[in-house]
Amino acid sequence: MHPVLKEVRHNPVLWLLVFVPAVFLVKARSHEAGTTLFVLSILAVVPLATLLSHATESVAAKTGDAVGGLLNATLGNLTELVIALAALRAGQYTLVKASIAGAIVTNTLFMLGASFLLGGLRHHLQEYNRTSARFQAGLLFLATIALLIPSAISEADSGPSASFTQTLSLALAVMLILAYGLGMFFSLTTHRELFGSSSHEEEGEPPWPIGLALVMLVVVTVVVALVSEVFVESVQEAAASFGMTPAYVGLIVVALVGAAAEMASAFSAARKNRLDLSVGIALGSASQIALFVAPVLVFVSFLMGRPMDLEFTIPEVVAVIVAVFIVAEISNDGETNWLEGVQLLSVYLILAILFYFLPGTH
Amino acid sequence: MHPVLKEVRHNPVLWLLVFVPAVFLVKARSHEAGTTLFVLSILAVVPLATLLSHATESVAAKTGDAVGGLLNATLGNLTELVIALAALRAGQYTLVKASIAGAIVTNTLFMLGASFLLGGLRHHLQEYNRTSARFQAGLLFLATIALLIPSAISEADSGPSASFTQTLSLALAVMLILAYGLGMFFSLTTHRELFGSSSHEEEGEPPWPIGLALVMLVVVTVVVALVSEVFVESVQEAAASFGMTPAYVGLIVVALVGAAAEMASAFSAARKNRLDLSVGIALGSASQIALFVAPVLVFVSFLMGRPMDLEFTIPEVVAVIVAVFIVAEISNDGETNWLEGVQLLSVYLILAILFYFLPGTH
Amino acid sequence: MHPVLKEVRHNPVLWLLVFVPAVFLVKARSHEAGTTLFVLSILAVVPLATLLSHATESVAAKTGDAVGGLLNATLGNLTELVIALAALRAGQYTLVKASIAGAIVTNTLFMLGASFLLGGLRHHLQEYNRTSARFQAGLLFLATIALLIPSAISEADSGPSASFTQTLSLALAVMLILAYGLGMFFSLTTHRELFGSSSHEEEGEPPWPIGLALVMLVVVTVVVALVSEVFVESVQEAAASFGMTPAYVGLIVVALVGAAAEMASAFSAARKNRLDLSVGIALGSASQIALFVAPVLVFVSFLMGRPMDLEFTIPEVVAVIVAVFIVAEISNDGETNWLEGVQLLSVYLILAILFYFLPGTH
Repeated sequence: MHPVLKEVRHNPVLWLLVFVPAVFLVKARSHEAGTTLFVLSILAVVPLATLLSHATESVAAKTGDAVGGLLNATLGNLTELVIALAALRAGQYTLVKASIAGAIVTNTLFMLGASFLLGGLRHHLQEYNRTSARFQAGLLFLATIALLIPSAISEADSGPSASFTQTLSLALAVMLILAYGLGMFFSLTTHRELFGSSSHEEEGEPPWPIGLALVMLVVVTVVVALVSEVFVESVQEAAASFGMTPAYVGLIVVALVGAAAEMASAFSAARKNRLDLSVGIALGSASQIALFVAPVLVFVSFLMGRPMDLEFTIPEVVAVIVAVFIVAEISNDGETNWLEGVQLLSVYLILAILFYFLPGTH
Repeated sequence: MHPVLKEVRHNPVLWLLVFVPAVFLVKARSHEAGTTLFVLSILAVVPLATLLSHATESVAAKTGDAVGGLLNATLGNLTELVIALAALRAGQYTLVKASIAGAIVTNTLFMLGASFLLGGLRHHLQEYNRTSARFQAGLLFLATIALLIPSAISEADSGPSASFTQTLSLALAVMLILAYGLGMFFSLTTHRELFGSSSHEEEGEPPWPIGLALVMLVVVTVVVALVSEVFVESVQEAAASFGMTPAYVGLIVVALVGAAAEMASAFSAARKNRLDLSVGIALGSASQIALFVAPVLVFVSFLMGRPMDLEFTIPEVVAVIVAVFIVAEISNDGETNWLEGVQLLSVYLILAILFYFLPGTH
Repeated sequence: MHPVLKEVRHNPVLWLLVFVPAVFLVKARSHEAGTTLFVLSILAVVPLATLLSHATESVAAKTGDAVGGLLNATLGNLTELVIALAALRAGQYTLVKASIAGAIVTNTLFMLGASFLLGGLRHHLQEYNRTSARFQAGLLFLATIALLIPSAISEADSGPSASFTQTLSLALAVMLILAYGLGMFFSLTTHRELFGSSSHEEEGEPPWPIGLALVMLVVVTVVVALVSEVFVESVQEAAASFGMTPAYVGLIVVALVGAAAEMASAFSAARKNRLDLSVGIALGSASQIALFVAPVLVFVSFLMGRPMDLEFTIPEVVAVIVAVFIVAEISNDGETNWLEGVQLLSVYLILAILFYFLPGTH
């Protein structure tokens, strides 16, 4: 049997692929089905993200460790990047920025918290590699400072001009991507022995052949792009009818949808007592979005002629600081249990409640 | 000799019980003795809190470990709760909220700092159970986020409506009390082996017989309630004549008075080189007020028809964040000396100076 | 050969002494050479700071450990103190306060980051004494709270009066200097065994004879004072012509110049894999400026009749909090590598970019 079909058969998440044609059918038939399209496109993105993630890993597995690691690091959040690019094109800058903040918060609080809880319900105490967690926490902390400085400044009495914020954001984006590159160099080359136990390759489905993997990478990316466009178009109408602000959609819905594929892997690893892998996926994904996806979006928007700045709203800033502070604390430990999972999820729930009720103004 | 009389004879703090009748005598005689009543009621609360604390521990000691732990956790800050309820009834919402923030700050900075200093003056280096301290720090951190989110939000340009803040506060109160319950379940049931060394029972006076303990619990609570009413009535007049703002009274005076009984135990344990016990009392008391007393006050005020929100002033927010950050740092260590005590006390003194001089506006 | 001449011959930094007469020559000839004088005086201060630092160490080496430690602790940042006093006399309060914040940020992020990077390029992993780093982090944290409280308060809706801020600043200055004294007492007397490995004496040039050292201490201080006066006079003109704000000059330029001598020692120690020494110099210098130099400047300005308060601008506050948070994180570890150095330098660069572009308003 064809390896893709075989995988679809064994992985219930992929059964959601049925929603991909559904999105385009409904879209073609009706021009007023905003809310339906919103729900359908969310359901369609989840299995596509899973396929994309498998395709990336298959290519990475074939290309040797350093190149493979680089590929994983570059394409690991391709879904988030494609959705964000669609939103940028539609001029939904608030949504894009909210989804960047949301990805950091979701990956660190929800994905990590649920991993700790699911793992902790089976295993009394679980341990993981402190060094690797500290490395990711360091990258995330750097990103947080870079992302939040423009916001902190614009709160000062004498708010700077928009052009100043844009220049600053561009400079920060360059720095972030450099820092990300050096971080990759460190973890893949000079100090790779520190990251030994969190090997991605042992986990999950067997890799696809390289030809298939490359074809899937291109095809699925195109499909995700098409679905994302429908999603972004339908967001405003759907948000209004569900009583959600654009900030809420970006921070919670888009972030959860974009991270669905990674979550499946992280949760399954936690239940198998391989918490290193869960922590690596959750924190790695968060730092990748902050240090790679966010700068790329700044550059692309700059080339598109309407630069996106990195100025976030106060509640977003508070949420990101809280998330990164918690990661810093956690990475000092290296041990976890179900209560820590509950606590992380509680903080996530508090923030989700907050963003749901918060009157949207930006 | 009757066990209560015997205890009064041996514990000088209880000699202050003489101020209990004094409060009611002065109250009956004069209607303008605000300042005198303020001082007398403070002096009267201290020995009552000590009795209440002993009664609670006696009941707890008789009812087995899990139920006893639950009782201790629920009634351990009964004095603070009764004072706060009296203040709620008198409509002194600012005072109540200030005393919640003050209890967190006082327990973590003053009680912990003085314990470290008193212990450190006798013992060169002292150690304590990191795991237990981290557990309390986690609870406190969760509470801080929940308590401070409404305040952070209302600082945003577009201040939300009062009803939004109240709904949010109610939702947060439910979450906090759930988190507290799960924390109790964790420390008393699933992971109780982690908390071995900080056994409460070995310390202090022998427990009273269960009948006496129950009677004392009820009687002393009623007396505390009566004294609290006098205290709350006299606060405004006294604060004015001492040049103190209501925020200062709540943050510093009420918090110190409410914690007097716990402090006696914590300091004595520190001098006996049993720092686990001191840290447990100080942090346990702080997290109990944040995760149990504060939500209960929100519920009660809601039932009273005028809900209290959890929006704090900026200086209160800064003080709580500083306190919780310090606890997080300290709990990473597990070792202490006299200088750490001095540093914690210095931070407390800085905050106390600040709140004393701060012009009251609420 | 005379020991001072011998040292000049072997230490290329001291060749910059040629700029000392240059400053006074240019100053005497022309009254409009602001920019030239600015550059010349910066170049002249660097070798003078090196001589001053050597003189202090020579005196300290002769006077026994406790007194020597005290001397080092008091005079170690004499250059910064003399420059700041010159700026105070010229009424440049913004510059002085910026240079205090800048010294904390520069010492913790730039000096520590460059030490980690330089050391890490030679040595795969480097270790240092956690206890000593935690001690300094504790002092710094205390100072940060004291320095930032007035700023946090004045951001509250009801900004307090200037006289309140000044009284508060004076009280905080007294507390800081007391805390510094107790910290010295702790590290030099009661717990000196904890600080064993970071012995200053083994490092660097052989000490001068005590007579020579004392003469040099006085003479060089006078010369630094004279050069500082020229520097402060020329700042405004030069800043304008380089497009720098006074805040930028204080935070980045003055801080880097003042720390030049310490940096040379810290970097050389890091390359010799003596990271304890580097960390000790960087953090020690930061806490000395925060807990000793800043309070002395408050007292002196008070005696001069126009008290300096400790209210900082929001960007300064953000920068200091970021720096101290990073120090707290780092001191939990005790191990470093080149990437940590890069990350610290990146944060420094982000802040430097920020302050360069920030429109100066205060």
